[in-house]
Amino acid sequence: MNIGILGTGSVGQTLGTKLLTLGHKVKLGSRTAGNEKAQAWVSAAGSGASAGTFAEAAQFADLVIIATLGTGTVEAVQQAGPDNLAGKTVIDVTNPLDFSQGMPPRLFVGHTDSLAEQVQRAAPAAHVVKALNIISAPQMVDPASSGGDPDMFIAGNHEGARQQVTELLQSFGWQHITDFGGLEAARFIEPLVLLWVNYGMKSGGWQHALKFLKK
Amino acid sequence: MNIGILGTGSVGQTLGTKLLTLGHKVKLGSRTAGNEKAQAWVSAAGSGASAGTFAEAAQFADLVIIATLGTGTVEAVQQAGPDNLAGKTVIDVTNPLDFSQGMPPRLFVGHTDSLAEQVQRAAPAAHVVKALNIISAPQMVDPASSGGDPDMFIAGNHEGARQQVTELLQSFGWQHITDFGGLEAARFIEPLVLLWVNYGMKSGGWQHALKFLKK
Repeated sequence: MNIGILGTGSVGQTLGTKLLTLGHKVKLGSRTAGNEKAQAWVSAAGSGASAGTFAEAAQFADLVIIATLGTGTVEAVQQAGPDNLAGKTVIDVTNPLDFSQGMPPRLFVGHTDSLAEQVQRAAPAAHVVKALNIISAPQMVDPASSGGDPDMFIAGNHEGARQQVTELLQSFGWQHITDFGGLEAARFIEPLVLLWVNYGMKSGGWQHALKFLKK
Repeated sequence: MNIGILGTGSVGQTLGTKLLTLGHKVKLGSRTAGNEKAQAWVSAAGSGASAGTFAEAAQFADLVIIATLGTGTVEAVQQAGPDNLAGKTVIDVTNPLDFSQGMPPRLFVGHTDSLAEQVQRAAPAAHVVKALNIISAPQMVDPASSGGDPDMFIAGNHEGARQQVTELLQSFGWQHITDFGGLEAARFIEPLVLLWVNYGMKSGGWQHALKFLKK
């Protein structure tokens, strides 16, 4: 599958590298062509890896992953072009984090809206699915690295897209994926990142992940 | 210790019964004296159990637990009387749940405020601590009933009160209690109840509880 990733930071690069090992072709997209981080990643990643603008990554893709900073997410979607995302599964890994007051961050949207819903409104014909936003990049592609079999929570308005994301996460090693249905569930999935960050600050580690214990 | 509980539903009764077995005296408070549910609980619970108005429960108490519906929480605090809560640890177990659109519920506050912070503003001299709001009543007093050793998250502006709540939860059997400091953390602790409810609706069970896996 051709996968376009919007964002060239550690999340985008880590997901891109994992997807290459699974046999997909990956184009990292950034605001401008010739982004140095993207070029360095392409050189290191080898066959199947390429880079371009947000729009080029979206045009290239059968499936798109958004891995930008939350503050730049909606603008990245606008630059990618809603028409280039139409009818495609778009995995939103971002979080509406506001670091303007230092650590820990706060959310800049929530409760009656979510960043995932903002993405959906910016690209109305895309099949947006919230996923993977509650942990670090290395954990996303290696869930067992947290020391067990953690849970992942997804939501999106298009059932087929949620199924596609479920299968992609399973190919990463996720065994416990709960599909919460409509994208509105992102309103309680996104705040989980604050739990993750604050727990990391208290516990002094960043390899923790949530699991639901059950009788 | 004398413990006043605001609310006579399953959460208030379950916590009350557990506290009696631990040797505390418990007064269940309700909007009106002579509440039938409270009277029935007192009859069944026996020695050390009593009931009264919100204000009488608050006056009686060394430590207060708020276990009302979220929609009635602030009014209950006002009826209990801010002066009766001054200088006391007040455990806020409530959630800002809005069931007006059916299941699953939504939050009626969050993101830039929390119900716990509303409680604190309604009783400025109380030492409000958010705790136990993310699971069912039976799990609150028997964490192992979830099939393991789940995590509990607390927050509050008064360090001594947070320590007192930590020790009380330990007496219930909680082994993993993370103290997130200031009450603002309730902004991400309260949305966890939506994760719990929605996961229950998907999984068909209500004995699940969150645990942080760690490497």
